[in-house]
Amino acid sequence: MSTNIKKIGVLTSGGDAPGMNAAIRAVARTCAYHQIECVGIYRGYQGLIEGDFEDLSARSVRNIINRGGTFLKSARSQEFKTKEGRAKAHEQLIKNQIDALVLIGGDGTFTGGMLFNEEYNFPIIGIPGTIDNDIDGTMYTLGYDTALNTVVDAIDRIRDTASSHDRLFFIEVMGRDCGHIALNAGLGAGAEEILIPEANRGLEQLLESLERSRNTGKSSSIVVVAEGDKTGKSVFQLAEYVEENLPNYDIRVSVLGHMQRGGAPTCFDRVLASRMGVKAVESLMEGKSNYMVGMIKDEIVITPIVDAIKGKSSVDSDLMRVCEIMST
Amino acid sequence: MSTNIKKIGVLTSGGDAPGMNAAIRAVARTCAYHQIECVGIYRGYQGLIEGDFEDLSARSVRNIINRGGTFLKSARSQEFKTKEGRAKAHEQLIKNQIDALVLIGGDGTFTGGMLFNEEYNFPIIGIPGTIDNDIDGTMYTLGYDTALNTVVDAIDRIRDTASSHDRLFFIEVMGRDCGHIALNAGLGAGAEEILIPEANRGLEQLLESLERSRNTGKSSSIVVVAEGDKTGKSVFQLAEYVEENLPNYDIRVSVLGHMQRGGAPTCFDRVLASRMGVKAVESLMEGKSNYMVGMIKDEIVITPIVDAIKGKSSVDSDLMRVCEIMST
Amino acid sequence: MSTNIKKIGVLTSGGDAPGMNAAIRAVARTCAYHQIECVGIYRGYQGLIEGDFEDLSARSVRNIINRGGTFLKSARSQEFKTKEGRAKAHEQLIKNQIDALVLIGGDGTFTGGMLFNEEYNFPIIGIPGTIDNDIDGTMYTLGYDTALNTVVDAIDRIRDTASSHDRLFFIEVMGRDCGHIALNAGLGAGAEEILIPEANRGLEQLLESLERSRNTGKSSSIVVVAEGDKTGKSVFQLAEYVEENLPNYDIRVSVLGHMQRGGAPTCFDRVLASRMGVKAVESLMEGKSNYMVGMIKDEIVITPIVDAIKGKSSVDSDLMRVCEIMST
Amino acid sequence: MSTNIKKIGVLTSGGDAPGMNAAIRAVARTCAYHQIECVGIYRGYQGLIEGDFEDLSARSVRNIINRGGTFLKSARSQEFKTKEGRAKAHEQLIKNQIDALVLIGGDGTFTGGMLFNEEYNFPIIGIPGTIDNDIDGTMYTLGYDTALNTVVDAIDRIRDTASSHDRLFFIEVMGRDCGHIALNAGLGAGAEEILIPEANRGLEQLLESLERSRNTGKSSSIVVVAEGDKTGKSVFQLAEYVEENLPNYDIRVSVLGHMQRGGAPTCFDRVLASRMGVKAVESLMEGKSNYMVGMIKDEIVITPIVDAIKGKSSVDSDLMRVCEIMST
Repeated sequence: MSTNIKKIGVLTSGGDAPGMNAAIRAVARTCAYHQIECVGIYRGYQGLIEGDFEDLSARSVRNIINRGGTFLKSARSQEFKTKEGRAKAHEQLIKNQIDALVLIGGDGTFTGGMLFNEEYNFPIIGIPGTIDNDIDGTMYTLGYDTALNTVVDAIDRIRDTASSHDRLFFIEVMGRDCGHIALNAGLGAGAEEILIPEANRGLEQLLESLERSRNTGKSSSIVVVAEGDKTGKSVFQLAEYVEENLPNYDIRVSVLGHMQRGGAPTCFDRVLASRMGVKAVESLMEGKSNYMVGMIKDEIVITPIVDAIKGKSSVDSDLMRVCEIMST
Repeated sequence: MSTNIKKIGVLTSGGDAPGMNAAIRAVARTCAYHQIECVGIYRGYQGLIEGDFEDLSARSVRNIINRGGTFLKSARSQEFKTKEGRAKAHEQLIKNQIDALVLIGGDGTFTGGMLFNEEYNFPIIGIPGTIDNDIDGTMYTLGYDTALNTVVDAIDRIRDTASSHDRLFFIEVMGRDCGHIALNAGLGAGAEEILIPEANRGLEQLLESLERSRNTGKSSSIVVVAEGDKTGKSVFQLAEYVEENLPNYDIRVSVLGHMQRGGAPTCFDRVLASRMGVKAVESLMEGKSNYMVGMIKDEIVITPIVDAIKGKSSVDSDLMRVCEIMST
Repeated sequence: MSTNIKKIGVLTSGGDAPGMNAAIRAVARTCAYHQIECVGIYRGYQGLIEGDFEDLSARSVRNIINRGGTFLKSARSQEFKTKEGRAKAHEQLIKNQIDALVLIGGDGTFTGGMLFNEEYNFPIIGIPGTIDNDIDGTMYTLGYDTALNTVVDAIDRIRDTASSHDRLFFIEVMGRDCGHIALNAGLGAGAEEILIPEANRGLEQLLESLERSRNTGKSSSIVVVAEGDKTGKSVFQLAEYVEENLPNYDIRVSVLGHMQRGGAPTCFDRVLASRMGVKAVESLMEGKSNYMVGMIKDEIVITPIVDAIKGKSSVDSDLMRVCEIMST
Repeated sequence: MSTNIKKIGVLTSGGDAPGMNAAIRAVARTCAYHQIECVGIYRGYQGLIEGDFEDLSARSVRNIINRGGTFLKSARSQEFKTKEGRAKAHEQLIKNQIDALVLIGGDGTFTGGMLFNEEYNFPIIGIPGTIDNDIDGTMYTLGYDTALNTVVDAIDRIRDTASSHDRLFFIEVMGRDCGHIALNAGLGAGAEEILIPEANRGLEQLLESLERSRNTGKSSSIVVVAEGDKTGKSVFQLAEYVEENLPNYDIRVSVLGHMQRGGAPTCFDRVLASRMGVKAVESLMEGKSNYMVGMIKDEIVITPIVDAIKGKSSVDSDLMRVCEIMST
């Protein structure tokens, strides 16, 4: 592999996700393996502008593969959205002789990176890190598998109390505009109903379905609601509506919230992060730029960033059918 | 141990708690050990009124020691609050030749049981099962230790994302009018501030403390708020107030909710449940009635129920001092 | 979907794996959805021979999606290996009007099923359930993802004590002749060395590598050893050899053992089980027989069983390279 | 509180245990609270001899309350067992103006500390940190509650596979000469038999008990064996003996090993560590020396070290009776 890359910077930006630390470690170790210097950039693009850097050796990233969050921290940078901000960022890179950037984050991160690449022709490559799994160009984003397990574990717990009291629970899960977490964790947790933005069925159908479910002998039920779902104005209003229209239900609401973003990454996310980190560095070494690393059909591949962020990854209709059959 | 008890009924009532199944198992096995029949009563006092019973052998309670919730289910019974309801309950007991009852639940459960005992002189004994730990006569209620660990695990996860983004989190935890969960889990999770009803410090002091904490270099903070705490009208209004009065804080709120009630019980709760179940059955065999089993000073003891429910178990002031020192 | 299938039997056989219960549930619910009867067969082929059957309704499989093991139990049957045994099995199927079988298990299970199909032209379809992931025709077997996480969690714990004492640990993990668990969990746990049967490097190279690792400043190390690996005669002899040849190492051995087979399945395994169960039933309905369901390139597909069991699924050489880079 | 203590050193020694980091944090924060300097000493007594010290501020111990192991590391020091070694240690303390020591560890740690105190009249106080719970003067040592939960979780997993295959498992757990872990975790995991050194019942009685258990319909069984138990020469020989004498049992052995020492501490251990850390520092400030902090009858107290290490904490006979009843 011939290359002119001598120093690579790595940053995390946007919402944090389990596996980001594992990816930073993989970038640092791959650099060390190829005798490239590696620089960690704190607080995403804001730290890039401010020159908040630290050298990362192979040893300095030990004991972080199992940590949630990102030790490089993340932040939103208004300044990087301005031409002046990006100019400062470029100066910092030049001053520190950094030849290329690995950007770990979501679509906002990549949009910023692409713009920066356009303006300065600076080599960048993206690693998709977000629990929402809402990025094209990969079947799995970092943190998604961990979040699924966190959600399933929480719903398993709620199921204990729902069953003990014959209750109907509405559980809101994360995922922004995207129903991946709701659909997969709902299926995994054996939810009776799953409401996602990609397949809004309307209130009437929900009532009918709950009624039918009760008639077949289900005494307790779990309805998983994606945060982006619009069946009700909010999960609380949705629950109120059902309460008014389906008498004799003992209803509770739970919003799982930010605990979904943390925790030790699963094995899947750690392995994925390691593979993506290697691919990111070696792609830069091969002279590739403006790509995002992803896993498609069980292989680690790269996709032009512009394709990765243009569409929302869509929900598998086959999976929705499986959910329907499982709630028979 | 001489005794006239030939058949014991067991029920769970009020909010469910991890360890209830382990306690039912212990009651059933202790009965089997002493060649007493054991009857499970479904849905608490309501099932008692309706005669919703099932014989429990030593084998029928296998593989439940590790299950959250209660397989006998729990329910609130308006009917049992009436004289007529309790009369029906008594008839069911006579008809089924049940000689005594083990009641697993909280203060509402025990109040009902005590009334029933007064009216019919029917032998009862209580086992404290509630995550809130708000009962006198025991240092630990069933489910409390499990709930503490569930909360600490959730806050550990939130800490990951709080640290990554330098955020201030307000996290509401359960406990009804009682600050035990907030205080212990807050201490265990390394929370910077803990707000409990037993020691309301007021909004001004909270602001000062957060300000001071930021000045000493803490970039992210966790404030644990007991659900019964009245510092703000709600945790959301509390967060809003702080947001308005402490500029430049990135604030989030998380209400942990019903996941705190479920999950496999910890070893502590399983052992406690086993010991309490043995003590409950053997106390009835010794002719004791109207007592609650508890653990005080590392020993399993019984206390008159009237003493167990009269006061709220108070929060350890020594522990509050430890919290203050830890958030130095 | 036109079909003559009116009743389907389902059994689990061979080593149990997390996700088997979720697969049984999926088979039962898919049958209910298509108004096909479903019969659970206890203790694998032995229960088939003995007619140890139970009707499975959609409701009878509730609350099992999150349970490890298999409630239908598993057993090895010598009798089914004989012509007479299989004849009895066939009689039971005819007597009970069962039209097709779903076999959940590993290659031994499928070999038996294929033989039975040959002899009686009886419709069968396989679902791969084994933690070892050693079956062709699928990228993931049921239970594999759960086992990986169990192993990673155990190694994370061992890492705590290894780091505290600057120790070198040899950790044996399951996987029979196959290195999948060792390779993926080793990578996920950040192991310094991974020994698998597919890539035996020899004792000398291990010593060199450990020596080099110590020289670069690693004070503690984890060596993950697949149970099928032949670098040493056993993991204990391997550790002894290293102890004799690398002075001043404080060495410990841990054999993780059967805890790797149990536990609540991960979300991945639950979703996979649900999808495979649907596919299995619907493939039988379409008249397919002698196939195994699998997931290849992110899609649920079927493969002739003869192809699924002929080879061992091989280990990804790309992944081995990632491991090497990560232990830089 | 008047005191002449201006600087306190803290070290961890002997086997590591979850909660040690939380205790170090508590010591450092309590020092900061009282404006005392705090010094961390690496690698136990060996680091004390070598002067391997680091200042610990309130901030430097953040984010460690939830980490297993000990970041100060632990080591056995032959040198400290010599007069010369202890002289060097004393010189280091004088040179660094350290006025007192907090020693976190087990009986070996305390024996060394007591000797040092005798020779140099140097103020020391102990915090009991060991998973074995084998120290007098406290009902609970740090790490014990965490280890119990790790063991129970592992046995829950093994139970899944034991039940699926109707197997008999022998599971060896830690605890050195002491049966606390075996007894409590065995009870918590619902083990059919528990073998501990404090109550050796002999092989014949074990066989009888297993036979009886099988006759009452138990198809699978778990026997928990304390590592110090001498019923068999080893758990493997014990299993072989049973296999030879009880035909038709499908027997497996699992040695849980070092994973029992690691993992995030439970809430109980974190709270205990925090309270003990405060008590240790404040006791030194009050001029106390040669004591160990402990929790007895729900209160944090101090006991002369000489009493804490003289006897082994004995196993509760009431608890053994509960175990017997539960395996009815």
